[in-house]
Amino acid sequence: MSSDTVDDAGVYLLDEHVALVFTTDFFTPIVDDARDFGRIAAVNAVSDVFAMGARPLIAVNIVCFPDGDLPPEILAEILLGGQEKMGEAGAVIVGGHSVSDRELKYGLAVVGLVDPERMVVNAGARPGDALVLTKPIGTGVMTTALKSEALGADALERVTKVMMRLNRAASAAMTAAGAHAATDVTGFGLVGHACSMADASGVTLEIAAEDVPLIDGALDAITAGFRPGGLLGNEQYYRRFTESLSGADPHLLELMNDPQTSGGLLVALSDDRLDPFAQAYEKAGGDGYWVIGRVVEQGEKPVSLV
Amino acid sequence: MSSDTVDDAGVYLLDEHVALVFTTDFFTPIVDDARDFGRIAAVNAVSDVFAMGARPLIAVNIVCFPDGDLPPEILAEILLGGQEKMGEAGAVIVGGHSVSDRELKYGLAVVGLVDPERMVVNAGARPGDALVLTKPIGTGVMTTALKSEALGADALERVTKVMMRLNRAASAAMTAAGAHAATDVTGFGLVGHACSMADASGVTLEIAAEDVPLIDGALDAITAGFRPGGLLGNEQYYRRFTESLSGADPHLLELMNDPQTSGGLLVALSDDRLDPFAQAYEKAGGDGYWVIGRVVEQGEKPVSLV
Repeated sequence: MSSDTVDDAGVYLLDEHVALVFTTDFFTPIVDDARDFGRIAAVNAVSDVFAMGARPLIAVNIVCFPDGDLPPEILAEILLGGQEKMGEAGAVIVGGHSVSDRELKYGLAVVGLVDPERMVVNAGARPGDALVLTKPIGTGVMTTALKSEALGADALERVTKVMMRLNRAASAAMTAAGAHAATDVTGFGLVGHACSMADASGVTLEIAAEDVPLIDGALDAITAGFRPGGLLGNEQYYRRFTESLSGADPHLLELMNDPQTSGGLLVALSDDRLDPFAQAYEKAGGDGYWVIGRVVEQGEKPVSLV
Repeated sequence: MSSDTVDDAGVYLLDEHVALVFTTDFFTPIVDDARDFGRIAAVNAVSDVFAMGARPLIAVNIVCFPDGDLPPEILAEILLGGQEKMGEAGAVIVGGHSVSDRELKYGLAVVGLVDPERMVVNAGARPGDALVLTKPIGTGVMTTALKSEALGADALERVTKVMMRLNRAASAAMTAAGAHAATDVTGFGLVGHACSMADASGVTLEIAAEDVPLIDGALDAITAGFRPGGLLGNEQYYRRFTESLSGADPHLLELMNDPQTSGGLLVALSDDRLDPFAQAYEKAGGDGYWVIGRVVEQGEKPVSLV
């Protein structure tokens, strides 16, 4: 089981009109506030469902908890945070499993429903499509700074807010706009997930590095030397699949490989569908999106930073 | 989230003819053989689905693996074991999630389908019903002996075989026979799960202790002093809900509280449906079942050992 495959949601066709989408994700705390950690874990776990244009339906909690070391109130807070966000996502938590463990971990397995004809996958991006990103990046470097107690309170609030925002509005908007392809941006970073979309679609993704939105504080964190292990791993792995023509700040370029927790959606859609996307996004309560590049004919490399 | 609720499968009505059953379970290795551990974890995880008379459909792997300490071949073996048993159960593994962890844990989240009109729950047992158990008990004491390297090879083989047996045939048979109620026997032991059925059904379950089947070696293990922590916890908790009129061997009576991993189904059904049950069970490849008592009008205690 490689990490390449395990983060993807599985799809099962119940009949010609209904497909089940099934995904799971869980991890150790990345923020200190228990309620917020629960919220982030839930938003992150359900993200794969939204990325496919599916509707989250039911979920089960996955809990590893150090019973002896932490008071049960901490677990209660985490579960409340998870429940709040799953409720906001439109899903019901119907159970779960908890084991005693030295290291706290929380997440969920989530089942969603989608009309297979309206399902959005990462294959399908077409030359000429615009590339839209629905959250700024930088959660990896900023939470790494947080671990070293080198992240200011304001920056922590900003990155937490980004991670706690559901991809629900983005999902509704891309479905309404008839997007050609989508993926959520998570552990492999913007470049990594762009590579997957490019490969699956048989195209090249041209990303304008300076148009990629950053969480305010991300550039400071990487400039100060905070790099998660995943960033270095992504850089090494995806280097061979990336052409860099950009003269942008090297630190900004590094952030293209920053592993995201609870990142936004990367969506490919026709230029003339950008307006319908914007309208549907606003109507669904969406909060910011950015056109970061375009899809071109398949070139030498899957991703080209310009 | 109490352990009382978290082990149960959640049910979601898709429409009047289709309900989704959703459950998850995972744990640390209870046998040393990696392939067998994967098999047992899968059989255990899918058991809740079978207990409701549902058909397992899709599953995702849940993996905590000490990358630094164990070779990847171990994980491959575990996943192969899980895949083998989920395939045998009729389900497809569509993904999963893996985190690096000090302590190895494996399990799955499983989704099943059931016609809500044919769904079997633990409420519904009626006075006069026979109580059928489809696996012998004793996995708790025997795996505890194993941890102290005090379990012989033959006994290990027997307990492993029991834990690796799916409740698929039992599920098919109880559905075919029109069972009134069922539950799988897991961490709360036979008495604990019988209590839940009794409470949910508003009846008392009378269990003939000497008719309860034991895995060969279980009585030796408990006589030699091997008691899992869960056994003592179950005894303390369920004592007040249990009336003991039995003059059986005290060690045998203790085993009524032995927490089971991948235990069998406890089924309540009309006496006159025992023959159809037996026929359907044999046809589905079932291997052994035992009539261990009967359902009576609600008495002072939910469970009466006779």
